[in-house]
Amino acid sequence: MKVSIIGSTGRVGRAAAFCLAEEQSVMELYLHARKSSLEQNKGEILDINDALAAKGVRVKINTSSNLENLKDSHVVVITAGIPRTPDMERMELGKENARIIAEYSLKIAKYAPDSIILVVSNPVDVMTYVALKYSGFDKRKVLGLGNHLDSLRLKNYMARHFDVHVSEIHTRVIGQHGPYMVPLLSSTSIGGIPIEYYSAHDYFTDYKSFDLKHTIENVINAGSYIISKKGATEYGPAFAIANIVNTILNDENQILTVSTLVEDLAEGVDEVCLGVPVKLGYNGIEGVVPVQMDQNEKQAFIDAAKFIHESTKDIMIDLENNFPI
Amino acid sequence: MKVSIIGSTGRVGRAAAFCLAEEQSVMELYLHARKSSLEQNKGEILDINDALAAKGVRVKINTSSNLENLKDSHVVVITAGIPRTPDMERMELGKENARIIAEYSLKIAKYAPDSIILVVSNPVDVMTYVALKYSGFDKRKVLGLGNHLDSLRLKNYMARHFDVHVSEIHTRVIGQHGPYMVPLLSSTSIGGIPIEYYSAHDYFTDYKSFDLKHTIENVINAGSYIISKKGATEYGPAFAIANIVNTILNDENQILTVSTLVEDLAEGVDEVCLGVPVKLGYNGIEGVVPVQMDQNEKQAFIDAAKFIHESTKDIMIDLENNFPI
Amino acid sequence: MKVSIIGSTGRVGRAAAFCLAEEQSVMELYLHARKSSLEQNKGEILDINDALAAKGVRVKINTSSNLENLKDSHVVVITAGIPRTPDMERMELGKENARIIAEYSLKIAKYAPDSIILVVSNPVDVMTYVALKYSGFDKRKVLGLGNHLDSLRLKNYMARHFDVHVSEIHTRVIGQHGPYMVPLLSSTSIGGIPIEYYSAHDYFTDYKSFDLKHTIENVINAGSYIISKKGATEYGPAFAIANIVNTILNDENQILTVSTLVEDLAEGVDEVCLGVPVKLGYNGIEGVVPVQMDQNEKQAFIDAAKFIHESTKDIMIDLENNFPI
Amino acid sequence: MKVSIIGSTGRVGRAAAFCLAEEQSVMELYLHARKSSLEQNKGEILDINDALAAKGVRVKINTSSNLENLKDSHVVVITAGIPRTPDMERMELGKENARIIAEYSLKIAKYAPDSIILVVSNPVDVMTYVALKYSGFDKRKVLGLGNHLDSLRLKNYMARHFDVHVSEIHTRVIGQHGPYMVPLLSSTSIGGIPIEYYSAHDYFTDYKSFDLKHTIENVINAGSYIISKKGATEYGPAFAIANIVNTILNDENQILTVSTLVEDLAEGVDEVCLGVPVKLGYNGIEGVVPVQMDQNEKQAFIDAAKFIHESTKDIMIDLENNFPI
Repeated sequence: MKVSIIGSTGRVGRAAAFCLAEEQSVMELYLHARKSSLEQNKGEILDINDALAAKGVRVKINTSSNLENLKDSHVVVITAGIPRTPDMERMELGKENARIIAEYSLKIAKYAPDSIILVVSNPVDVMTYVALKYSGFDKRKVLGLGNHLDSLRLKNYMARHFDVHVSEIHTRVIGQHGPYMVPLLSSTSIGGIPIEYYSAHDYFTDYKSFDLKHTIENVINAGSYIISKKGATEYGPAFAIANIVNTILNDENQILTVSTLVEDLAEGVDEVCLGVPVKLGYNGIEGVVPVQMDQNEKQAFIDAAKFIHESTKDIMIDLENNFPI
Repeated sequence: MKVSIIGSTGRVGRAAAFCLAEEQSVMELYLHARKSSLEQNKGEILDINDALAAKGVRVKINTSSNLENLKDSHVVVITAGIPRTPDMERMELGKENARIIAEYSLKIAKYAPDSIILVVSNPVDVMTYVALKYSGFDKRKVLGLGNHLDSLRLKNYMARHFDVHVSEIHTRVIGQHGPYMVPLLSSTSIGGIPIEYYSAHDYFTDYKSFDLKHTIENVINAGSYIISKKGATEYGPAFAIANIVNTILNDENQILTVSTLVEDLAEGVDEVCLGVPVKLGYNGIEGVVPVQMDQNEKQAFIDAAKFIHESTKDIMIDLENNFPI
Repeated sequence: MKVSIIGSTGRVGRAAAFCLAEEQSVMELYLHARKSSLEQNKGEILDINDALAAKGVRVKINTSSNLENLKDSHVVVITAGIPRTPDMERMELGKENARIIAEYSLKIAKYAPDSIILVVSNPVDVMTYVALKYSGFDKRKVLGLGNHLDSLRLKNYMARHFDVHVSEIHTRVIGQHGPYMVPLLSSTSIGGIPIEYYSAHDYFTDYKSFDLKHTIENVINAGSYIISKKGATEYGPAFAIANIVNTILNDENQILTVSTLVEDLAEGVDEVCLGVPVKLGYNGIEGVVPVQMDQNEKQAFIDAAKFIHESTKDIMIDLENNFPI
Repeated sequence: MKVSIIGSTGRVGRAAAFCLAEEQSVMELYLHARKSSLEQNKGEILDINDALAAKGVRVKINTSSNLENLKDSHVVVITAGIPRTPDMERMELGKENARIIAEYSLKIAKYAPDSIILVVSNPVDVMTYVALKYSGFDKRKVLGLGNHLDSLRLKNYMARHFDVHVSEIHTRVIGQHGPYMVPLLSSTSIGGIPIEYYSAHDYFTDYKSFDLKHTIENVINAGSYIISKKGATEYGPAFAIANIVNTILNDENQILTVSTLVEDLAEGVDEVCLGVPVKLGYNGIEGVVPVQMDQNEKQAFIDAAKFIHESTKDIMIDLENNFPI
């Protein structure tokens, strides 16, 4: 099965290429790059092939600047986009990237009309909406990476605090991939045991000592923290991407939190892409998994929806003026 | 790291040997067998080695009837015991097997004094107590397989009913490996979402249509069902054993439900081995994970404890008369 | 991708089902069985599903006695056939099994016309020819397991003698899966180093001490040895099957030794199925890999071809009389 | 089991940390860094932990600038060293790096006296000798990565040329990790079949069309090619390191080509570290595997030995003057 990456020469794209190449489910990998970056990609591919020789893995990897090569992709990952510079407003980043995503989405629709699009570029919830509209794909075929990575980060912090294997933590962050993210404490369990039951005990770290508020702040800031320390996030997003791609290619029906179109969520919010748990399989999103939130969680989720809805509207108006579908 | 199996020529022992041989964490496997079964084991080892050649796995596998070869085992798995025949009372099976387990436990204490004992022989909760007493090991070093397999079976049924990946189901069966098992519905979640929130929805199987009572009956009867159809359970127990051994050898701190010593649980139940969730790592059981049960679950758990406690008492009296420590 | 097993309730078929279910490349497994064995298979499937829950693997497994369910299989494995009893001539076994294979091959051609057939039933080289003729498939789509398992066994013995990782041994057994097998010493290397260069040295087992003749006898007799010790071969063939299936499904282009149609090999041998190295990928056999044999090897190979050719002729005449295509 | 990396903030060190963290055999990873790079490493560790959460892997990762934390390492990987700049002579690089390696080797001997040292810093053959002398370790405990990576690269080129799975290519590059490398065509096989037998055939790429000389040039230049395209080699060396570490930790006895001390190789070459095939297991190098070379290969190997011997002498004299053991 074939996977393509658009934006394969950025730091997330490069790491994603490496991680996807290792996966048994991926048999062909196409790395799209602008002409000026093709030489870099030749070096990347040779480096990755050396690594695969060490692992005994066989996969076809190609690069080109010709989008026709998207043909027959089952998943197209978009990591392309302009990185934010200090003097640039986030919204401005949104507008610039929206044009890039829109243009690629039109091309994906043309050359890989049966593919599933996984949007990684930021602001991801808005960009997912753009990809949905400009590809014209069914809503089950367009999703965004965001809260899945946030959820992994929250799992990670909790697993270390409670000193248990990370697979024992089931938790979710929904809403926005950004400050409006909503951690679902009411759907959080350790070893299947609801976290509020996982109480004080001789052997274990006291639940009461777990500072959720501080942890959430850490999750919200994890991206910028890593960027400030090492210049970019790379392995975390790369494996989160590999996770989603694997779930699709292997038809695993895992319940992952991705950005997807939600309709009629609240007054004035007719449609918006934001993070919710979905059942994900070979054909994309099988359905949104309903969660019963407590009052605070619900309010925070609606606030996230409203914020993204507004941002999306601005960006879409700008986009349609400059770049009509 | 070295793992030993006592009772390696029975159907569970054989399948466990095969599954453990594949695991990267196992570097040496010792299969103990009575003299009369050594020839069979030579055939088994050759067959397993053929399989490992196909997988490219290297492990040392030996067999002998000399228990001194338990030396340096990190885990000793006991699958030995007389299989139940139709004309035999379960309690009678208990008494016969208790002598076998007691004798092996003394030998394990002698030849592998730093090992962890994993008891698989039935009735497993009682046999775990016997192994604990006759080995004289710390309670963290003796555990029984039982409810972990029941929990896997319940996960399995639920994953199929709700059509999600099995790793999305977190549930527990505690108490007894037998009719007194207690499924913890209050600690059951799908994708981290408490099962009672996982409610009706267009896309999904209605939770209300999930017949828990019937499913639990299926879990209770799964063992005898499989035995009636194919003559024995083999792959399920084998992988459940591999799971527990891996968690120990890799120090994974997974929260698995195993039979372990619990003290002062209820009036008259001063000590008993039964299934509870524990955090399991390189040094054995790090601690019991407390769960808050609802009233029915609690009562059922205490009933299980009382039943096992009585059975254990009978068997221990018989054992101490015939086979003083 | 879907794999089917015909003869899934025999000991090799059962173990193959278990091993294939674990493979990430297999997404659906269909176990064909006669009506009388369907109940057994229900037990097997539940037992396998318990095991997969322990491994966190998701695969669909079904059983039925309706061959229409072969539909959409990419590989169909045939392990069906009458097991040899002491009072039965091997040739008689061939005639009985030929009818079974012929009948199934006609059905495979009907219900899974684009599949690849992997024949495991014995005498495998003759049965591969039968499957080829009765399915009417292209010769690249029909192959037999035989010398691959022999090759694995030889690797296994050599890896243990020289105390190196099994992946360091590259060797081949070609010709017949039986007494006419031909070990290719001239194509045997340890760590890529031709075995005759792998000479005496302080640190290593002397090559001269390696008794090839005795080892080959062991390989020839390995099957009957294992059967005499444990009643059947199971894990070795099962993993050898999984190997071949994986190479196909993942389009790995490994060079495996399987039984395939070879034409105009020697005078009087116009066509025969026997073991030769082939490059194996998604579409089946890409081509036979030529090996340059020394004079003895060549003679032994031609003897094998003649013997199988004669046996095949007898069986085909009997078959065509009783069961015209 | 614990693995440490000295030089963990360089590009190879970072990628090696990521790849080793994923390996099941590694249970603890210590990343040594200078004080000024500790903050970077905190970002790296968080990024890696996010990735591991996605993979469900549990490993302890720590960083510090205190070499006491090397304690209990089974393997210490040295990737530290000054990178070459265009205006710097290679020999000058050797002298600078020699001091760094010498100093770290003394510290490893102090804090992890039972460890195995894997040297990656360049010029690697000379640096391996420095590490051997300054650690004072047994020669079986000190090895250098170099020709293993060259061998992987040659495998990689050949697998692509002949369109077979990379595991089917067995070939070796020995001698120097640099222009004096010696590809062993006489120990090269495809699917175990000596390459000169793998001759012309309808189905396959003609062996005669394989331009070995050009390919070797590509292998020699692969490192600089990748550096020129993407700024550094990272995934290839990282997986080659992971390969070697795994072989050691799992006691796999693979035959890998690493730099190790060879004595009395030729007149005037009393001792030198250079690339030869070794059997590698839990206790390090079990022994050098002898290969019978043809006359040209032999001469090239001795030339490599002489060249490295001279370079080593110069660097050791400089080192001992400035930095006596």
